[in-house]
Amino acid sequence: MTDRFAVTYRILAGTEPEARARAEAIALEQTVEIPRDAVPPGFVEDTILGRVEDVAPEDGAFVARISYSLESCGEELPQLLNVIFGNSSIQKGLKVTALDLGPLARAHPGANFGMEGLRDLTGARGPLIVPVLKPQGSTPERLAGIAELCARGGAHIVKEDHGLTDQPCAPFRDRVRRIADAVARANAARGGRTLYFPNIAGHPEDLEALADFAEDAGVDGFLAMPGLFGFGLVRRLARRKRPLPVMTHPSFLGPYVLSSDTGFSHAMMFGTLQRLAGADISVFPNVGGRFGFSAAECADIALACRAPEGIGRPILPGPGGGMTLDRADEMRAMYGDDAAFLLGGSLLREGDRMGDAIARLRARLEK
Amino acid sequence: MTDRFAVTYRILAGTEPEARARAEAIALEQTVEIPRDAVPPGFVEDTILGRVEDVAPEDGAFVARISYSLESCGEELPQLLNVIFGNSSIQKGLKVTALDLGPLARAHPGANFGMEGLRDLTGARGPLIVPVLKPQGSTPERLAGIAELCARGGAHIVKEDHGLTDQPCAPFRDRVRRIADAVARANAARGGRTLYFPNIAGHPEDLEALADFAEDAGVDGFLAMPGLFGFGLVRRLARRKRPLPVMTHPSFLGPYVLSSDTGFSHAMMFGTLQRLAGADISVFPNVGGRFGFSAAECADIALACRAPEGIGRPILPGPGGGMTLDRADEMRAMYGDDAAFLLGGSLLREGDRMGDAIARLRARLEK
Repeated sequence: MTDRFAVTYRILAGTEPEARARAEAIALEQTVEIPRDAVPPGFVEDTILGRVEDVAPEDGAFVARISYSLESCGEELPQLLNVIFGNSSIQKGLKVTALDLGPLARAHPGANFGMEGLRDLTGARGPLIVPVLKPQGSTPERLAGIAELCARGGAHIVKEDHGLTDQPCAPFRDRVRRIADAVARANAARGGRTLYFPNIAGHPEDLEALADFAEDAGVDGFLAMPGLFGFGLVRRLARRKRPLPVMTHPSFLGPYVLSSDTGFSHAMMFGTLQRLAGADISVFPNVGGRFGFSAAECADIALACRAPEGIGRPILPGPGGGMTLDRADEMRAMYGDDAAFLLGGSLLREGDRMGDAIARLRARLEK
Repeated sequence: MTDRFAVTYRILAGTEPEARARAEAIALEQTVEIPRDAVPPGFVEDTILGRVEDVAPEDGAFVARISYSLESCGEELPQLLNVIFGNSSIQKGLKVTALDLGPLARAHPGANFGMEGLRDLTGARGPLIVPVLKPQGSTPERLAGIAELCARGGAHIVKEDHGLTDQPCAPFRDRVRRIADAVARANAARGGRTLYFPNIAGHPEDLEALADFAEDAGVDGFLAMPGLFGFGLVRRLARRKRPLPVMTHPSFLGPYVLSSDTGFSHAMMFGTLQRLAGADISVFPNVGGRFGFSAAECADIALACRAPEGIGRPILPGPGGGMTLDRADEMRAMYGDDAAFLLGGSLLREGDRMGDAIARLRARLEK
């Protein structure tokens, strides 16, 4: 096992022999993808072929631990995901619930900043307050104005809405330059250190240039959507020459967690995989907003983001999605201080008083 | 509507007013992502905000057609997917079933070759026979040997297994050069024109260079995995200076179709979205193999791949996944001649007689 990594699957099966047969089928599917009797002896059979390490009943289903060779993926992140769940994602009755990187941990060091790094950068004493710049269709001037109000109010991070990319109504370069300048102005005026994270999105072939431009413009971190661009984008951003913090957004990832019959556990998708890719903050929809995650699922995500034994540094869970200012105390009770609270549409209702609203919120959360 | 594109959603709701309210919520969620009363008047409200065009009952659920502005995504493919289903992917009771590009069709011309182009390139008279080079862990020499046998037997395309990337046990450059040479040798010996499609996968930042290398080595097309690298990779490959045919593989895409409660219809995911991105062949798991797609779902996919009124050129459906040589007649009866039949593990059982098996299959399918 020392040169292998291991994946835990929750298998829906009637009996233990059925679950074991299913596990053996997964071990084939995720590696050689040929019938067992056609597997060539030697390296392919002894090393490449997935190995069922353990099958045990749990909560009306079965849990199987299957190990794979480092040779199957090398240091490639997309190929690691391919081995974990590529073809098996198309079979029902199967969910990925845990990943033990083993010696592969060297290739996937995780977040550059994480929970502690972001607290150092922002100086936050309580949870991080993260207003979202929106809506799509606003002019760069308008978005910069919102950013400035939020920074003056003492927001820890202003992040862009995931719907702002490089489209005609929000050209990346003009927008990012104006917002970065506005946040810098506010920071200078207040002696603050609000960070600004633009959304790195557009034509995939342009993303590297967009990130370069943003860095030159003075941004403090990046937002990325692994569901639309692959987890490789998160890794690329985390591995830049001078890394900045990376926040991930759940857009297009819903189907991986919404079915009990396929996909990943909530903790695995919005905790483990984000840490694996190098995210510092993982955004997910909080319980009670417009999305249907339960309190238990959200707690599992927060735990997976912050567990010391997870991949690399502990990272910040970023609950959002329909949050309002008056839910802040409730959220703090649920998540504690090591979290980033996203504030979206409800903040816009405050209009020119957005900054005051954030200042009040911050005062309350720093108590 | 002339400057807008439209998306059709299947909504699970009890009553028509509920379905209509849900549709209005989707129109907000997918664009401005703020409460309705906070939407600024003018451009944002009049143009950016999604518009519910129609809601109607259908088969125990409701079908809603929502239009969006071209301004929301410009010509970006990932952002188009973001508008279609980004955040709504995280809400239950909702499936995307159709896309009407409208004027956006100019930005998404679809496949460069498609069904007819591939028939011209291969000279195939019946369905295309597409053996898969595997298993992972095989040496480049061994894979080249399999490719040569298949090409000598008259395979139309030899494609690499999606588990061959750029990992240590199958370094891309060595493997691709050897296989391209082997296929060229076989073609020269037989006067054939078997095409070779390597899998473009590895570290995301290397993919462009891998495709360049492959083109120089003389490959005839590319395999791509949009589930792991994003649909943007398919588009990038389809938009190269000298485009080669692109075949897409369903790895990691399962959760988007396996639940009735979220995701895309089978036809949308393995037909429409593949055509949108520029694929020429869309691989999906055939009914009766190791995966659970029904005959009706497979027929829907084939229809969506080949429908003349779809995006760009009609493309080839590529049923695979546990296919055996003796199922070829049944598959032909189901899919007709405009399809690419993948042959995987069962072919390997033939050992050195793989070429003969393919020649027999080809003779049978050309009758």
